[in-house]
Amino acid sequence: MSVTRSVFQDELDGISQSLVKLTEMVIISMSKATQAVLNSDLKLAEEVIADDLKIDEFQHEIDNRIIDIIARQQPVASDLRALVTALRMGSDLERMGDLAVHVAKLARRRHPDPAVPVELIETITAMGVAAGKITSKTGVVISTRDIELALQVEKDDDVMDTLHRELIAILIEPIWEHGIETAIDLTLLGRYYERFADHAVSVSQRVYFLVTGKYA
Amino acid sequence: MSVTRSVFQDELDGISQSLVKLTEMVIISMSKATQAVLNSDLKLAEEVIADDLKIDEFQHEIDNRIIDIIARQQPVASDLRALVTALRMGSDLERMGDLAVHVAKLARRRHPDPAVPVELIETITAMGVAAGKITSKTGVVISTRDIELALQVEKDDDVMDTLHRELIAILIEPIWEHGIETAIDLTLLGRYYERFADHAVSVSQRVYFLVTGKYA
Repeated sequence: MSVTRSVFQDELDGISQSLVKLTEMVIISMSKATQAVLNSDLKLAEEVIADDLKIDEFQHEIDNRIIDIIARQQPVASDLRALVTALRMGSDLERMGDLAVHVAKLARRRHPDPAVPVELIETITAMGVAAGKITSKTGVVISTRDIELALQVEKDDDVMDTLHRELIAILIEPIWEHGIETAIDLTLLGRYYERFADHAVSVSQRVYFLVTGKYA
Repeated sequence: MSVTRSVFQDELDGISQSLVKLTEMVIISMSKATQAVLNSDLKLAEEVIADDLKIDEFQHEIDNRIIDIIARQQPVASDLRALVTALRMGSDLERMGDLAVHVAKLARRRHPDPAVPVELIETITAMGVAAGKITSKTGVVISTRDIELALQVEKDDDVMDTLHRELIAILIEPIWEHGIETAIDLTLLGRYYERFADHAVSVSQRVYFLVTGKYA
């Protein structure tokens, strides 16, 4: 029994490590997408769009491994819940990759024009930094199950919400001179960063729930 | 063995029936939210926002039943995949409820002013109708596993995408006279309907994959 248990624990740890790797992949993807949208970098935008397939495939592989572990090991109680939660974390992370693609596609659609007007460069840069920070911490939460850090991730998300409000405030200032079409682009861009962070928070909260049995 | 098998099938059928009921709940929620946003109906908006708790709780209950079935019945292969897919469908449907809440919150935020200017009433009405139609068919796909109908759901989603493009085209017309703030609201409103439909399509595609082993 103890041998089986240990194999199972190794498999579970392997899944966690893969989820951390998936986290790193979406951090890189969003970081590149942010650079692409800030610098009208078409090559980088295309790279993010193409590389999303690797994120999708890796998530798919993790899913299959999880289902295979459930089928072979027939875990119950908390072990089963940990695996079901891992499936959900994979979905969140895959969706974060999609959101980075949306950012990259905006850069591509507007190229060679800049997608982000000069008065919003600072806000979008800060949203990119916040997205990276929240998601990096989420990666650590997955690997260490540090519930204090999970609570910090939620606090960090408040920064993203503040930035999002700042973005909208700039768009509706009377001096806004870039027209409705740019305002629409920036509204959606803000939404992509906000949702990206929401999914990272969701991953972190899932770990919190797994460890404590309570909602953060 | 045949008795166990039959109990398991009954349990699986019960899960499908509950997912159909969850589908009906989110259809009603989005339908009410659409009425609220079109008619500045604060009472209806509040109802949608309050009732989302019931959707969340019901999804939670379905999740727990699925995990309990996996733990007790220890299914493998296609039975296990059907249950994992049911977990994912529940997540999609719960998220659709959240999107209806976003629509309702816009109605509440703008009340007593109308959230939707007169020239967009027709488009938003049509998006509400399309959302209902796509999701109703998705409910039938869940209960009948009709893969032809699953393909129809994808076609119906093209209607939503066309409506979304129409919406953006109206916002960027030079005669648009409702300012940037209303354009931002309507951009997000369009996105909520589009995402709502995307999740319905995703549920339908999951059934398609379960039945055929292929992606639609």
